[in-house]
Amino acid sequence: MYRYTRELQFTAKPEKPDALFAMKFQEILGGQFGEMTVMMQYLFQGWNCRVPGKYKDMIMDIGTEEISHVEMLTVMLARLLEGAPGEVTEKAVATNPVLAAVIGGQNPQHAIVSGGGARPTDSLGNPWNAGYIVASGNLLTDFRSNAAAEGQSRLMTSRIANMTDDRGVKDMLAFNLARDTYHQQQWMLGIQMLIEDGFVEGVIERSNADLEDDDAAHVFYTAQDDSAAGQGLWATGESVIDGEPFRVEPLRPLTEDDGTLPAPDPLQFVTYDGNAGPAKPGNAAGARAQTVENVVRKVKNTLT
Amino acid sequence: MYRYTRELQFTAKPEKPDALFAMKFQEILGGQFGEMTVMMQYLFQGWNCRVPGKYKDMIMDIGTEEISHVEMLTVMLARLLEGAPGEVTEKAVATNPVLAAVIGGQNPQHAIVSGGGARPTDSLGNPWNAGYIVASGNLLTDFRSNAAAEGQSRLMTSRIANMTDDRGVKDMLAFNLARDTYHQQQWMLGIQMLIEDGFVEGVIERSNADLEDDDAAHVFYTAQDDSAAGQGLWATGESVIDGEPFRVEPLRPLTEDDGTLPAPDPLQFVTYDGNAGPAKPGNAAGARAQTVENVVRKVKNTLT
Amino acid sequence: MYRYTRELQFTAKPEKPDALFAMKFQEILGGQFGEMTVMMQYLFQGWNCRVPGKYKDMIMDIGTEEISHVEMLTVMLARLLEGAPGEVTEKAVATNPVLAAVIGGQNPQHAIVSGGGARPTDSLGNPWNAGYIVASGNLLTDFRSNAAAEGQSRLMTSRIANMTDDRGVKDMLAFNLARDTYHQQQWMLGIQMLIEDGFVEGVIERSNADLEDDDAAHVFYTAQDDSAAGQGLWATGESVIDGEPFRVEPLRPLTEDDGTLPAPDPLQFVTYDGNAGPAKPGNAAGARAQTVENVVRKVKNTLT
Amino acid sequence: MYRYTRELQFTAKPEKPDALFAMKFQEILGGQFGEMTVMMQYLFQGWNCRVPGKYKDMIMDIGTEEISHVEMLTVMLARLLEGAPGEVTEKAVATNPVLAAVIGGQNPQHAIVSGGGARPTDSLGNPWNAGYIVASGNLLTDFRSNAAAEGQSRLMTSRIANMTDDRGVKDMLAFNLARDTYHQQQWMLGIQMLIEDGFVEGVIERSNADLEDDDAAHVFYTAQDDSAAGQGLWATGESVIDGEPFRVEPLRPLTEDDGTLPAPDPLQFVTYDGNAGPAKPGNAAGARAQTVENVVRKVKNTLT
Amino acid sequence: MYRYTRELQFTAKPEKPDALFAMKFQEILGGQFGEMTVMMQYLFQGWNCRVPGKYKDMIMDIGTEEISHVEMLTVMLARLLEGAPGEVTEKAVATNPVLAAVIGGQNPQHAIVSGGGARPTDSLGNPWNAGYIVASGNLLTDFRSNAAAEGQSRLMTSRIANMTDDRGVKDMLAFNLARDTYHQQQWMLGIQMLIEDGFVEGVIERSNADLEDDDAAHVFYTAQDDSAAGQGLWATGESVIDGEPFRVEPLRPLTEDDGTLPAPDPLQFVTYDGNAGPAKPGNAAGARAQTVENVVRKVKNTLT
Amino acid sequence: MYRYTRELQFTAKPEKPDALFAMKFQEILGGQFGEMTVMMQYLFQGWNCRVPGKYKDMIMDIGTEEISHVEMLTVMLARLLEGAPGEVTEKAVATNPVLAAVIGGQNPQHAIVSGGGARPTDSLGNPWNAGYIVASGNLLTDFRSNAAAEGQSRLMTSRIANMTDDRGVKDMLAFNLARDTYHQQQWMLGIQMLIEDGFVEGVIERSNADLEDDDAAHVFYTAQDDSAAGQGLWATGESVIDGEPFRVEPLRPLTEDDGTLPAPDPLQFVTYDGNAGPAKPGNAAGARAQTVENVVRKVKNTLT
Repeated sequence: MYRYTRELQFTAKPEKPDALFAMKFQEILGGQFGEMTVMMQYLFQGWNCRVPGKYKDMIMDIGTEEISHVEMLTVMLARLLEGAPGEVTEKAVATNPVLAAVIGGQNPQHAIVSGGGARPTDSLGNPWNAGYIVASGNLLTDFRSNAAAEGQSRLMTSRIANMTDDRGVKDMLAFNLARDTYHQQQWMLGIQMLIEDGFVEGVIERSNADLEDDDAAHVFYTAQDDSAAGQGLWATGESVIDGEPFRVEPLRPLTEDDGTLPAPDPLQFVTYDGNAGPAKPGNAAGARAQTVENVVRKVKNTLT
Repeated sequence: MYRYTRELQFTAKPEKPDALFAMKFQEILGGQFGEMTVMMQYLFQGWNCRVPGKYKDMIMDIGTEEISHVEMLTVMLARLLEGAPGEVTEKAVATNPVLAAVIGGQNPQHAIVSGGGARPTDSLGNPWNAGYIVASGNLLTDFRSNAAAEGQSRLMTSRIANMTDDRGVKDMLAFNLARDTYHQQQWMLGIQMLIEDGFVEGVIERSNADLEDDDAAHVFYTAQDDSAAGQGLWATGESVIDGEPFRVEPLRPLTEDDGTLPAPDPLQFVTYDGNAGPAKPGNAAGARAQTVENVVRKVKNTLT
Repeated sequence: MYRYTRELQFTAKPEKPDALFAMKFQEILGGQFGEMTVMMQYLFQGWNCRVPGKYKDMIMDIGTEEISHVEMLTVMLARLLEGAPGEVTEKAVATNPVLAAVIGGQNPQHAIVSGGGARPTDSLGNPWNAGYIVASGNLLTDFRSNAAAEGQSRLMTSRIANMTDDRGVKDMLAFNLARDTYHQQQWMLGIQMLIEDGFVEGVIERSNADLEDDDAAHVFYTAQDDSAAGQGLWATGESVIDGEPFRVEPLRPLTEDDGTLPAPDPLQFVTYDGNAGPAKPGNAAGARAQTVENVVRKVKNTLT
Repeated sequence: MYRYTRELQFTAKPEKPDALFAMKFQEILGGQFGEMTVMMQYLFQGWNCRVPGKYKDMIMDIGTEEISHVEMLTVMLARLLEGAPGEVTEKAVATNPVLAAVIGGQNPQHAIVSGGGARPTDSLGNPWNAGYIVASGNLLTDFRSNAAAEGQSRLMTSRIANMTDDRGVKDMLAFNLARDTYHQQQWMLGIQMLIEDGFVEGVIERSNADLEDDDAAHVFYTAQDDSAAGQGLWATGESVIDGEPFRVEPLRPLTEDDGTLPAPDPLQFVTYDGNAGPAKPGNAAGARAQTVENVVRKVKNTLT
Repeated sequence: MYRYTRELQFTAKPEKPDALFAMKFQEILGGQFGEMTVMMQYLFQGWNCRVPGKYKDMIMDIGTEEISHVEMLTVMLARLLEGAPGEVTEKAVATNPVLAAVIGGQNPQHAIVSGGGARPTDSLGNPWNAGYIVASGNLLTDFRSNAAAEGQSRLMTSRIANMTDDRGVKDMLAFNLARDTYHQQQWMLGIQMLIEDGFVEGVIERSNADLEDDDAAHVFYTAQDDSAAGQGLWATGESVIDGEPFRVEPLRPLTEDDGTLPAPDPLQFVTYDGNAGPAKPGNAAGARAQTVENVVRKVKNTLT
Repeated sequence: MYRYTRELQFTAKPEKPDALFAMKFQEILGGQFGEMTVMMQYLFQGWNCRVPGKYKDMIMDIGTEEISHVEMLTVMLARLLEGAPGEVTEKAVATNPVLAAVIGGQNPQHAIVSGGGARPTDSLGNPWNAGYIVASGNLLTDFRSNAAAEGQSRLMTSRIANMTDDRGVKDMLAFNLARDTYHQQQWMLGIQMLIEDGFVEGVIERSNADLEDDDAAHVFYTAQDDSAAGQGLWATGESVIDGEPFRVEPLRPLTEDDGTLPAPDPLQFVTYDGNAGPAKPGNAAGARAQTVENVVRKVKNTLT
C-alpha cells in the first residue's frame, strides 16, 4: 500500500518556461524508456515477485521511488508549459517568425488536450503503452532488462540535458542522471547476489539447459563472405558455461528442409497446386488423433 | 544487400499438426521478445551503426541469422496448422467436447485471416510493433538491451518447449535455446570488447558524467520502514566507478518544493483559484523573451 | 440503414487555407474526444441497445448527426489544406523563415499520405482507435460516459476556437460548441428519465448492490498526513444512497495480508527461495479439482 | 513523493487458484476502465492540478489509493494463477476434455510471458495504453470523466463478481464495488463543490460561451422520420442554462454548402477534373499571405 | 449529411445464439478488412474527394451502404450473443466439459465489457484502428486499394461462412458475399472509367514518370541462385507502359556504396572510432548553410 | 535462409544532410505503405506459401529485394541526419529563426532516441506495426493487395521526391519509383498467370460462389436521391462473371427487420424494458442445447 507526501523527491523548477523544450522532455516521461516505463516495470515485477525479503523489498523500494520520479517530471513539464502560446493565431504567426517556429515546434496536445499539463506520451505523442515493460517472474532476466532500461534511459536523459541552458532543468537532470548511474549498478549487483545466493547458476539464462543443442551454443555464424566479425571476443573467446572455445562458421543451411508446406484445407481457399497430394479437409477428426472416442475409451477403462 | 537460399537454417518439422500449440508458439515469433523483435532490432542497429569493421559486421551477421530464424518459425507454424479445423461448426462442437476445446483454444485468425499460415502477432493476436525495439546508436546500451532481449527470449522459448511432446518441435527449440545461450554471451563479450577497444570507460552508461550529482549516485533509498533491501550488495557494496561505498537512506523529499504550479493561461480554461496571482495570457510575447525584436536587433547589428 | 444528402449539416468554409491550423484541427476530428469518437460510441450504443423506443431512437438520432459532424470537419480540413506547401524544398526554406516555420509546423502526412485531405488521426498523427469508445449495454453508465465525452470534446473545441482568427472556422465552431452544450444536457436528462422510467434506482451505478461492503462505501481515505481533502463535500456530505454521513480515515492497510505469493510452478523457471514450501508442478491435475474423473463420475451418475 | 507499506489495503486471497477466471480478471486490472486507468488518470490530473488545497489533495489521495488497488489486483491474479497448467502437453489434453478447456480458456501469456504473474493488459491481452486516460486541467470536465469511469469500472467489476463462486475473490470485489460506489459520489460532489466555490457556473462545460450559436444549443435533431425520441426530457424539457424550452427538428442541411473542394496542388497528384479552375501550385508564397516580405516590412517599420 | 431508417438493409437473424461463433464473427466487423474498415475508408475518400459528380457520388453511395453493413453485423452479433453464459462459474465448468469449452472459446469482453453486444474489435479483441485505411486523394491508387480490400474481406467472409450451420447467418453472409463480389468489380470498373475519362494514363500509378529510372523499371531481380521465378509472365512478359520486354537479373549491388556512415555529433554519445574524421558537432550552423545571415542578406537585398 | 553483402543495392548518398527532410522521409520507410510494410508482407506471404515453384520463388525474390530497400532507406536517413542539431538550446533558437524552424520541424526522436539514426516509424513517429500487412494464403487476393500497396507506396515516394532538390536523394528515389512501377506490373501479371495456370477462375475473389446471393451481385445502390453515380461503368456495364448487366437501385431496406434485440441476461445489468419477454439468464444450459447430456448420450451410444 502507498502513502503520499506533498513535497517532491527533488526540486523541479525551471528558470523559465520553454514550450519547445517541453515537447522533447516528454520523451523521458512517457517514451519507450521514460520514467513511466521503469515505474510500471518495477511495480509489476515487485507485485508478482515470489521471493519475499531483500529482493522483493529492493524492487518495491525502487518502484516507489520511480513513481516519485514520474511526479517530478510531470511537475517540471507543467512549469515548462507556463504561458505556452495556446491561443496564438495566424495573424500573430505571420508577423513573427520566431513565434511561428515556436508554434511549429510545440506539441499541440499540450495546449488542446492537457491545457498546459504533462501528457502520458513520448515526444511525438505516442501514448505510453504496457508493451514497453517486462515482468517475467525470473529475476535474472528481469534484472538484466532493468539494467538495460536504466542505461537507455540515462542516455536519453543525457541527450536531453544537452538541449537546454536552463539551470533549473539541468539541476534536476543531474539528479536523474545520478540515479540512473546508481540504478544500473543496483541491478547488476542484484544479479551478482542472485548467483551468491544460489538462485541462478551464472549470468546467462539457462533454464532447460539439458534440452539445448550444445554444439550450436558455441558457434558464431557469419552471414557475409568477408565478415570482420571473426576478430571479436565472441569468436575468439570461450563459453562462460563450459570454457570451450567459440568457433566461427559461415551461416549456411544445416538441413535440406526447404520449407515446403503440406496441403491446405480446401475450405481455407488457399492457393495450392496439389504438389503435396490432395488438399486435406481440416476437420478436427482428420487433423488430430484425439476425438471424443478417446473420452469414451477413457470412460470405458475407468468404468471397468 | 541480402540474398536468399531456399533451405532453412535448421529443420522445422513437427511430428504432427497441433493448432492449440500453434497459438502459443506465436509468442516466440511475434511477441515482445519474439524473433521478429531481435531481427528488427539488430537490423536497425546494424544499418545505423557508425563503426565499420568487426562490430558492424557482427551485428549484421546476427541480424541476418535472425531473419532466417523468423523464417524457420513461420514454417514451423504453417506446418503445425496443417488441417487446423477451420470449418468446424456448432453441430460438430456439440458432440465432441475435445473438439470444442480445440476450437476454443485455437487462434481464430489462423483460420480466418491467414488461412493456416503464421501471423505476425503474439500469442494473443497483438500485432508486432516497432515499439518493442531499440537502436540508440550507443553500442554499450544497445548491447546491454540485446543481451537482455536474448535472455527474455530464451526464457519464453524454454517455457514453450515444456508445453509440447512433439519431437520435431523440441528438436528445433533445442537449436533455438542454444543460439539464445550463445547470443547472450556474444553481446556481453561485445561489451567487454568495447571496453578493451577504448570505446567506453566501463560497463555503465556514463555520458555527460561531469553533469551528474555525484552524491546521489551512491545511495539506495528505502521506500518502506522495515525494508530488508539494505542487506543486498546494492546497499553494502561499492561503486564500480569510484570504489566509494554505497549507503542506505530512507526515501524522503530532498526539497521543500511541493509541486505548486504557476497560474494557467486563462484561454486554456484550466481550473484556477488565483493562488499564484492573475492568470497569465499565454501569448508568446509574454511567455518568452525571444520575439521578432530579436531578429530586428540582430539585423540592425549586422547592417551596421 | 442510412441515406445520404450532399449538402452538409452546417457550412464548413474557412476564409482562407491555413495548414498550421489544420494540423491542430485534427484533434477534434480524430483525437481521443474528437467527433469520430462520439460518432462511433453512439452508433455502437444504439445498434447494441436492447430497449426500443425513445432511448434507442435518441441514441440513433444523435449517432447519425455525429456522422454528419465528422463529414463537416473533414470538409473543413480539406479546405484548410488547399495549397498546403507540399513541394517546398530546402532552398525555399533557407530564404524564408516563415515558410520554414510553416513547414516545421505542418503535418507531413497531410502532404505525403492524404494529398491535402483530412486524416483519421489526432493532431499528432495517432490513428483513431476503438479503445476510445465504450458501449456497455447499461444506459446509465453509458449516458454518463457520453456526457463526459461531450464536455471534454467541447473544451477542446473551445481551445481550438481561440487559435484562429478565421471567421469561417469560428462560425462552424460556434455551431459545434452549441451542439456540445446541448448534448451534455441531453445525456444528463437521459439519466433523469431513466430514473423516472424506473430503469435505474439513482444516479449511481449500483448493480449487485447486496454484495458490496456497505461500510467501505462511506469513507474518504487520505493518503497524506496533512491532506486538506477533509474540507470537501465528499468528506463532510452524505451518501445519496442511504443518507448516512461520509467519514474521513487515513489510508492504511485493512489487512495483515502482505502480498506474499505461493510457490511457483517449477517449470515456469520463476525465481523462488522455498519460503512457501516446495514449488508445486502446475499440472492441471494438481492445480484444480476438476479432472476427467469428474466427467466419469457424472457419466456414471447419469448412467445409473 | 510516495512511500510504501508491505501490507495490502485489503486482503487479496482467493480460496483456490483458477486460471480461467484469472484471464477474465485481467479486464478490471489493465482494461479500458480497469484500475490502471483510474490510477494513472488521477495521478496525472493531480500532478497537473493548478489549484492547491482540498481539490488537489483529494485527487492525490484517491490517486494514491488507486495505486494500492492495482497492487491488490495483481496479488490476487498471481494467487489465482498458482499452479496454472503451463506445461500441459498435447497428450494430456487428448485424454482430459476439461483440462483441454482450461488450456483453451487460459491466457497463454500468463504462462509464457509472466510466469504465473499478473499482466498489464486487459482480458484479451491488449496492453494498457495511455489513450484510455484524460487530464485536461479543467476540473469540471475531468471530474465528470472520473465519475463515468468509476461507473463503468463498477459495472465490469460487478459482472466479473458473478463469474466466480470463490469467497476470497468475492470478498475483495465487495470492497472494490463499495469503493466504486463511493468514488462515483465523490466526483459528483466534487462538481457540486466547484459550483459552490465559484469555479464553474454550472454542471455544463461552457467555456467561450459567448461564441456559441445560442439557437443550436436548444434543438434535438431527429435523423429518422418516425423517431420516438421526441418523447424524452431532452426534447420536452428545458435548458439548464437559460430555462428556455428545447425543441425538436428534423436533421436537415442548414446550408447549401455541398462540400465541393477547391483545386488541389498539382504536385500532390490528386485526381481532379478542373471544376474549380486550374489546379493551384501549393507553394507557400501562393497559398498564404505571410512570406518573408512581411518580415522585411516589419523590420522596415521598426527601423524607421 | 446522413439520415437513418430503422429497418436494416438486410435481415440479420441467426436461428439461435452461438457465443463461440460470435467471437469469430467479430473479424469481419472490426478486423483489418472488416466492414468498419471499408466504411471508414470510403467515407474518408469521399469526403476528401476533389472531383464532384459520378466518382464522388459513387464513393459516397457505397460508403453509406457500408455504414448500413456495419449496422447489420452488430445486430447479428448482439443476437448471436443472446444468453451468452456470462455468469458461469468454476463449479459449472467442472461438471460440464462442453460448457467449459464454450467458456474457453468465448470472447470474455462480450460478457464483461459490452454486456452481450458487438465490440468494435477483431476476433482477438484488437480495437479497430485507422491505420487500416487509406485515402490518398489519388483515385487510381485508392480504387486499387479498395478492390483489394473487398477481395480480402470476401475471402474472410467466405471462410467464416464455412464455420456455421446456422441458416440465418448463412443467408446474411450470402448477401455480404454478393456485395463483395459486386464491389470488387465496381472499383475495377472505376479504374477503367478513370482511364476513359482521361484522369490517368493507365492502370499503373505513374506520377513523376519523367524522374524514374527507366531501365530499373524492366527488371526482375532473383535473390536466389536457382529461382524458378524466371518462368513467370513478370519475367517473360513486357511492360504495359512501353511494350519493352522484361528481363531477369540476379539481385546484386548496383553500387560500391557499402553504407558507411559519416561521423556522429559527439553530443549524441554514439559509438564511433574516428574512421570518418573527427566527430562533427551538430550545431545547425555547421550542419546547414542557411542561417540568420541568409535572412539578413535577403532583407538587405530587399531594402536596397 | 538469408546471406548478406555489405554493398547496398543502390547508392544512398544525399548531397548534404537535411534533418527536416529526414523527418518526412521516414514515411516511406516505416509508414503504412513504407518499405518495411512491403518487406514484411512479402516475406510472410512467401514463408506461408503452399505452392512451391515460380510463385513462391517470385515472392521470396521480391521479399528479399525489399529487405535490401529497407537497408538503403535507413542508410539514406542516417546520412540525412548527419550533424542534425541535437544540442541546440533556447538561446540559439532565440537569435536564429531558421534554426528555430529547423528545430520545430525536426523529429525529436532522431536526436533523443536514435542518436541520428533511422527510426522504425512513419513521419509522425507512429511505430511500424504488423496491422499494416496481409498474408491470407490466397494468392489472388494477396497479389491484388500487393499491387495496391506498390501503387500507394509509389505515390508517396513521388510526393516526397518533390520535396527535395538534393540530387543524391532524387537519384535513389528515381530507382525506387522504377521498382514500384515494375512491381505493380509484376503483381498484376502474377494474377494473369494464376488464371492461365488454372488456380483461379477470374480476377475476382469468388470462393464459395454457390453460396452467394446472385441477384445482389449485380446492383449498384444509390444512397442519395440525385446521385450521379448511375453514369459510371459500375452501373452501365456488366458483370465479368456472367455478362449480365448491372442495374441501379436506391439503397433501401430489403427487410422489415428493424434490429430489435432479444432480452438480455439479467446478470449483465443491461438496460431492458421487458419488450422481448422476461430477461433470460445466460446459463449455458438455457442458451444452447449441447450440454454434458450430449456427451453422456454419445457415450451411451458408443458403449452399446
